[in-house]
Amino acid sequence: MTTTLKVGLAGLGTVGASVVRLIDQQRTALTQRCGRRIEIVAVTARSKSKDRGVALKKVRWVSDALALAIDKEIDVFVELMGGAGDPAKLAVEAALRSGKSVVTANKALLAKHGVKLAALAERHHVALNFEAAVAGGIPIVKTLREGLVGNKLARIYGILNGTCNYILTRMEQEGLSFAECLKDAQRLGYAEANPSFDVDGHDTAQKLAILASLAFGTKVAQSAVYVEGISSIAPEDLRAADDLGYRLKLLGVAVRTAKGIEQRVHPTMVPKSSSIAQVMGVTNAVTIDGEGIPPITLVGPGAGGAATASAVVADIADVARGIRANPFGRPLAQLRDTKKAPMERHEGGYYIRLLARDFPGTAAAIATRLAEQKISIESIVQRHPNGGVAPANGKAVPVPVILITYATHEDAVRRALAAVQRDKVISGRPQVIRIEKN
Amino acid sequence: MTTTLKVGLAGLGTVGASVVRLIDQQRTALTQRCGRRIEIVAVTARSKSKDRGVALKKVRWVSDALALAIDKEIDVFVELMGGAGDPAKLAVEAALRSGKSVVTANKALLAKHGVKLAALAERHHVALNFEAAVAGGIPIVKTLREGLVGNKLARIYGILNGTCNYILTRMEQEGLSFAECLKDAQRLGYAEANPSFDVDGHDTAQKLAILASLAFGTKVAQSAVYVEGISSIAPEDLRAADDLGYRLKLLGVAVRTAKGIEQRVHPTMVPKSSSIAQVMGVTNAVTIDGEGIPPITLVGPGAGGAATASAVVADIADVARGIRANPFGRPLAQLRDTKKAPMERHEGGYYIRLLARDFPGTAAAIATRLAEQKISIESIVQRHPNGGVAPANGKAVPVPVILITYATHEDAVRRALAAVQRDKVISGRPQVIRIEKN
Repeated sequence: MTTTLKVGLAGLGTVGASVVRLIDQQRTALTQRCGRRIEIVAVTARSKSKDRGVALKKVRWVSDALALAIDKEIDVFVELMGGAGDPAKLAVEAALRSGKSVVTANKALLAKHGVKLAALAERHHVALNFEAAVAGGIPIVKTLREGLVGNKLARIYGILNGTCNYILTRMEQEGLSFAECLKDAQRLGYAEANPSFDVDGHDTAQKLAILASLAFGTKVAQSAVYVEGISSIAPEDLRAADDLGYRLKLLGVAVRTAKGIEQRVHPTMVPKSSSIAQVMGVTNAVTIDGEGIPPITLVGPGAGGAATASAVVADIADVARGIRANPFGRPLAQLRDTKKAPMERHEGGYYIRLLARDFPGTAAAIATRLAEQKISIESIVQRHPNGGVAPANGKAVPVPVILITYATHEDAVRRALAAVQRDKVISGRPQVIRIEKN
Repeated sequence: MTTTLKVGLAGLGTVGASVVRLIDQQRTALTQRCGRRIEIVAVTARSKSKDRGVALKKVRWVSDALALAIDKEIDVFVELMGGAGDPAKLAVEAALRSGKSVVTANKALLAKHGVKLAALAERHHVALNFEAAVAGGIPIVKTLREGLVGNKLARIYGILNGTCNYILTRMEQEGLSFAECLKDAQRLGYAEANPSFDVDGHDTAQKLAILASLAFGTKVAQSAVYVEGISSIAPEDLRAADDLGYRLKLLGVAVRTAKGIEQRVHPTMVPKSSSIAQVMGVTNAVTIDGEGIPPITLVGPGAGGAATASAVVADIADVARGIRANPFGRPLAQLRDTKKAPMERHEGGYYIRLLARDFPGTAAAIATRLAEQKISIESIVQRHPNGGVAPANGKAVPVPVILITYATHEDAVRRALAAVQRDKVISGRPQVIRIEKN
């Protein structure tokens, strides 16, 4: 264990270059802390000639990721290429098969093939570390794998996508529309040209699948996550949330229920007083509820070269120190199968925003339909857009009605709203947002 | 590594009993996660007969902590007795000397004798784990020791004492005095009959000394921490903080400066928008600033049987898994000596509250004295207590004046205020509170 740990690094984008820089800058401290030197001995990336502003002259260049993964000289293969398929998958598999530990930041690969990769790591007695794959610089994987190893967890939820939180924060603070804020996010480099992966919740779902596996001992599976994005959120929803003591966040939630582990990603009303509600802009946060203990919340950068690189380096340091955990906390044989949460059976409070046609009996009609489904109303807000004065032309104007329900079943809410729509007492589609209590 | 890990537990108070319960409840999960069973085989405590509501019938009772520490049957000694001196110190030393790993929640022992104990652990190649000693259920020790191993840290600060944060929260939210809130805290069991250890900042100082060592590689030393408590805080300070966009917290702060690592505990103004400002009641929180990365904040329970026990069990699980880190992150030989921060050279912004004698020229006199020391004022608030109307008796009434300075040196502030007092333009002593920017 006193020999140098030799690292092969595949991928020299923002994170890869930051890893090279960090290992260089922190050389002395890392050697002290790990009891051995850590050295990048070989790299590969798409372009050899590109200037990345880091010292790579003394480092051997390998033609491709697969060749690097099975390179005889390296002890640990660091995969920072991304993508759920090849070449990342092929290279990671090859590295594990040839008895090398793997460090990766690749959430897509883990969410899709995590079980298979963990099996390979287990069979070959090597580490598969992925702190950087979820919430960048926040050490949530280690916290779940090791720090809370003695706790029976009840729920884990978080803001795992900086793009969405940036958009919702701007919408809330400036009253702007989703489209306007998305455009700004794209201009600032917080959102891709094709924003669907972020704003439709898929990025959050991949990260949640990994967290759920670590927290609850389920087999990681992105396909088990119910997903809804933020594109239908209107400034009115954020204003109403504020009025009612909530904030609106895109959360990934995994929760232990009587029917199994429910994994879901959707816009969520959270009480303003909760730690997660305070998290603004591109920042990420994860809250962990253990049975019988108050929640623990970790807040920090979810992305960015230096923050993500710090997680990658910590993972490499664990390999250097000879720490090898089960990739998902427990041996594979003890991970349970994951089923997709049947959202119609989800239980919780709901925020409902309707546009009521303004004639006598509308409120009564809505209340009746909810009562039929045994849904109790916690609060109801109805504001005439022009202060209750009838418009000059005498025509009825639709009036927004906002309801907060007590805990109920999602299918009851859906049935009640279908009936309200059939009654033709509202305009357009109702907005329905789940509430997560702390 | 497939044999049972045999635990000897000294101390069966709230935390000790919770550890017994947690290991019992989480038996299967712990065995899965650690790859071996964890079993408490022997215990000791002050009273053998006391009913603690946990199953201890099958567990051997040992006469005293020292005998348990060197007991041939145990692999790991868990010290939950507390106190910086014997019997805890003697027992922990004996356990380490006889080649047993030690898990302890004893912050006082570590803050005073941590260097000596780490030397013993190092010499005998055993673990010395103390996650529970700082911020109870928040995995901050592991985060600093392992999770952020690649980061060069710039600053770490936190709310480390639930009693003080409870008192400040009540004072802020209800406008009550320190004395009233302390009395309530005592009634609710949040504060001791002799509250000095908590409210005068010593508890925070012990925890900060441990965090500073882990974060900056300094030798742990409570004596190196500058300490000020919260007993002089008045409701006016909390109101003024609120007006000016701050909250008042008792922080432990360790920061890398040009002159070395500054460690200090004192009431602190923090911007309302910071994560740490959101932390209310008995909750603890720690923020870590790395160089070049956004801050990471961990929020959670700082005390309580179950939360603290979860940290103890995680430490035991690390021993079971064969993980052994340097107690303070680096080998002892590489820890640097710690010097007490010379607070007169502290640089930062200051909140100053004065009671100005209400006659012409007072404001000018104060401004002149500050200017002489090259202190720039960021904001100044002066409110006539009765709306500016002179009292009926025509006598001048002292007027509170609140100043926020830009960053300056503490000795400059002290000199300026001494001059103001000599000028006899103010009543009583000025209140001075440091500002910590995020």
